[in-house]
Amino acid sequence: MSKQQIGVIGMAVMGRNLAMNLESRGYTVSIFNRSCEKTNEIIAQHPFKHLVPFFSLKDFVKSLEKPRCIFLMVQAGKSTDDIINSLMYDLEKGDILIDGGNAFYKDTIRRCEYLTKHGIQFIGAGISGGEEGALKGPAIMPSGHKEAYLIVAPILKKIAAYFKDEPCVNYIGPNGSGHYVKMVHNGIEYGDMQLISEAYFLLNKLLKLNNEEIANVFKQWNKGELNSYLIEITQNIFHKIDDKGNYLIDFILDEASNKGTGQWTSQSALELGEPLSIITSSVFARYLSVLKSQRLKASNVLSGPLVKVFNKNTNLFIDKIGQALYLSKIICYTQGFSQLKKASDKNHWNINYSSIAKIFRAGCIIRAKLLQKISHAYEQNPKLVNLLLDKSFQNIANDYQQELRDVVTYAIQNGLAIPAFSAAIAYYDSYRSPTLPANLIQAQRDYFGAHCYKRIDTPGMFHTEWND
Amino acid sequence: MSKQQIGVIGMAVMGRNLAMNLESRGYTVSIFNRSCEKTNEIIAQHPFKHLVPFFSLKDFVKSLEKPRCIFLMVQAGKSTDDIINSLMYDLEKGDILIDGGNAFYKDTIRRCEYLTKHGIQFIGAGISGGEEGALKGPAIMPSGHKEAYLIVAPILKKIAAYFKDEPCVNYIGPNGSGHYVKMVHNGIEYGDMQLISEAYFLLNKLLKLNNEEIANVFKQWNKGELNSYLIEITQNIFHKIDDKGNYLIDFILDEASNKGTGQWTSQSALELGEPLSIITSSVFARYLSVLKSQRLKASNVLSGPLVKVFNKNTNLFIDKIGQALYLSKIICYTQGFSQLKKASDKNHWNINYSSIAKIFRAGCIIRAKLLQKISHAYEQNPKLVNLLLDKSFQNIANDYQQELRDVVTYAIQNGLAIPAFSAAIAYYDSYRSPTLPANLIQAQRDYFGAHCYKRIDTPGMFHTEWND
Repeated sequence: MSKQQIGVIGMAVMGRNLAMNLESRGYTVSIFNRSCEKTNEIIAQHPFKHLVPFFSLKDFVKSLEKPRCIFLMVQAGKSTDDIINSLMYDLEKGDILIDGGNAFYKDTIRRCEYLTKHGIQFIGAGISGGEEGALKGPAIMPSGHKEAYLIVAPILKKIAAYFKDEPCVNYIGPNGSGHYVKMVHNGIEYGDMQLISEAYFLLNKLLKLNNEEIANVFKQWNKGELNSYLIEITQNIFHKIDDKGNYLIDFILDEASNKGTGQWTSQSALELGEPLSIITSSVFARYLSVLKSQRLKASNVLSGPLVKVFNKNTNLFIDKIGQALYLSKIICYTQGFSQLKKASDKNHWNINYSSIAKIFRAGCIIRAKLLQKISHAYEQNPKLVNLLLDKSFQNIANDYQQELRDVVTYAIQNGLAIPAFSAAIAYYDSYRSPTLPANLIQAQRDYFGAHCYKRIDTPGMFHTEWND
Repeated sequence: MSKQQIGVIGMAVMGRNLAMNLESRGYTVSIFNRSCEKTNEIIAQHPFKHLVPFFSLKDFVKSLEKPRCIFLMVQAGKSTDDIINSLMYDLEKGDILIDGGNAFYKDTIRRCEYLTKHGIQFIGAGISGGEEGALKGPAIMPSGHKEAYLIVAPILKKIAAYFKDEPCVNYIGPNGSGHYVKMVHNGIEYGDMQLISEAYFLLNKLLKLNNEEIANVFKQWNKGELNSYLIEITQNIFHKIDDKGNYLIDFILDEASNKGTGQWTSQSALELGEPLSIITSSVFARYLSVLKSQRLKASNVLSGPLVKVFNKNTNLFIDKIGQALYLSKIICYTQGFSQLKKASDKNHWNINYSSIAKIFRAGCIIRAKLLQKISHAYEQNPKLVNLLLDKSFQNIANDYQQELRDVVTYAIQNGLAIPAFSAAIAYYDSYRSPTLPANLIQAQRDYFGAHCYKRIDTPGMFHTEWND
């Protein structure tokens, strides 16, 4: 019996679509799923595909050409450990495991160390693009054993998304770095989505645009600097009519769920000392949205100004919102990339930020025109510490900062919550502030806790007996 | 040789002062420190105190009455584990260890489980009050073995701070809960300090008040609803003159340090699904302040509006800032107590929120007049889910929300960063908003990831084929 070139474990939507993607590029693929129903279902649905089903892990492993190349597409966490443990009976030295799930990067580091000891090559690969990306071409962020990467690189390049003629895949760095980059990608996705939803909030509540009009605004935005996948699908969302003939968006409950990667990104920021305010405010906005019953109660007892519908120069204000959105988005990416740099420096990953921006240009959820600019900025200066210090981004910031101020202050004076926009302008003004009132915080800390402070005129640490 | 009633391990400032506190209440105290220099120093400084020094842990343990009662006042983390491990050779069943350090609550839970197995009683006790509090009376948050607490309660009540005739100590709940409450206390402290520093920023930059004038504003504020320890010391800080005859505050570097408890609080919020935006923005503000060299660069290339000094009705604007500060402070405590509730529910701690607010009324860093109101609100309704739903806090919010808006929008239009004030108004407006744009986020998630959504008119989870 001839052997297959690649194995895929896990036949949930991402694994199934990745297997189909591999098959469509001419690879023969062995597939395995813990429960056989899903495997049978796929084979029944696609009888003519070169997908070879297996119902025991042993047979599955045996069916693969050596060195074996196996994609793990199972649920992140315990399932991944379980399957790795089971595989250890049958894998041989030199075999390659690629974890394409949304693994927590510290788990990936742990698994990589464990597998290395047993001679198994391990690649932690962030894969973004949702179901469609997995099927037609995702953005891939592989990390771990470099030699293993070189072996599988041709495969990854075939199944990846393409931006013009460049595949959206590149070696990220040592173990864990690929999943870390994917985590930050998801964090940025939270930020993008929250900012877009705040723009919608303003278009809807402040300008009283209807869904078709809002769709049209997003259509226009998608033609310009805001061009991105998320803006594009947002436009489509506002057109969508449900079975009853209503605009679907108006009947979706305003409680946002999450699967934890935004939370991880913010927790890592806190650990690293990175002021990741926009993504974090986006995560908190989702948490707050879920308190719907409390919000309904509160809406009856907590007062605010009546919304003054903005009905003069509507188009001008729409433009302002678009510019505020673009600058906020830039600041959100600025924070995300700054965090990548901090993590890379701390872990000695030596990440290439331009290359990461390039990977993000197609296939993944945050693909956007902006990424070309970001890639360019880091290409020009690989040591850039903050995107806002790049000339081109400075210019945009200087052009749009007043619009962001106007939108935020107008929203606040009308009682509309825009936490991510607010965090953006606060970061901008903090970052460009030569002095901040943190001197008072240091004085307080020294006053009650003898934590000492630095002076601006003399080096060293100082303590004052404040009560003398 | 007669034995001592209490032992204290760790002679850094908190341990030393706690030992002196115990001694001053009539207890005999054995003291131990890893290095003998500190112990000798204390004995030399206080020859007439009933502090008995020991230089071996074995002798120290032997010197105590049974059941032994030992305060651990060592650095949180590895040092605590090391000393516990060393103590295990000499402790006997029924002995009581009280960890009064700033332990991470999950470590406390782990230690409690370990010590329980070995028959040692363990109390994780958050202690707040800085050096002065430790010496004269701190707020104490003990948790863990209830029987052990009952044994040491008379001691804790003697050394604690008093609010009128009530000691600022009370049993919090099962293991870990005391350190959790202390952690949130510290998180609130970060929020309080950031909000005060933003108020200072506005008084200084927007109203151009000098240090004496600012001190006077804080003096006035301390006479009213804002009355608190942190406002009081802030007033003193602005009066302080350094050796060279300058106002010290003007020569303290504006880079705020931290010791991690704010970070822990925010990380826990993210884990619990709690929108803890003010404390988190305060932690991020400290992180951002440290980027002083980047800020200096950015200040030359990123533009903003010129600050228009506010010079009409200055007193009216000072009042507005005070009211904005008070409402933001209330929202900060609201978030902190909401997080306590979430943690208590998740861990089955059955925390009494009114009792905690009472403990905070004296001795600790966040002691403030406001805590009496909070205690009262939870006393009236122990199941209150959010302080803003309490009648008395509603009234304040309704009275001051416009002032908070005015202060935030004025600051933003003048290019001054006030991230914590901004987070406060964003939380307020989100919380009282019956609808939020989270419906769009759910639509996007379903569009690209088939994550499903709920509808407002029909129960169940729905998925849409958006491209059809």
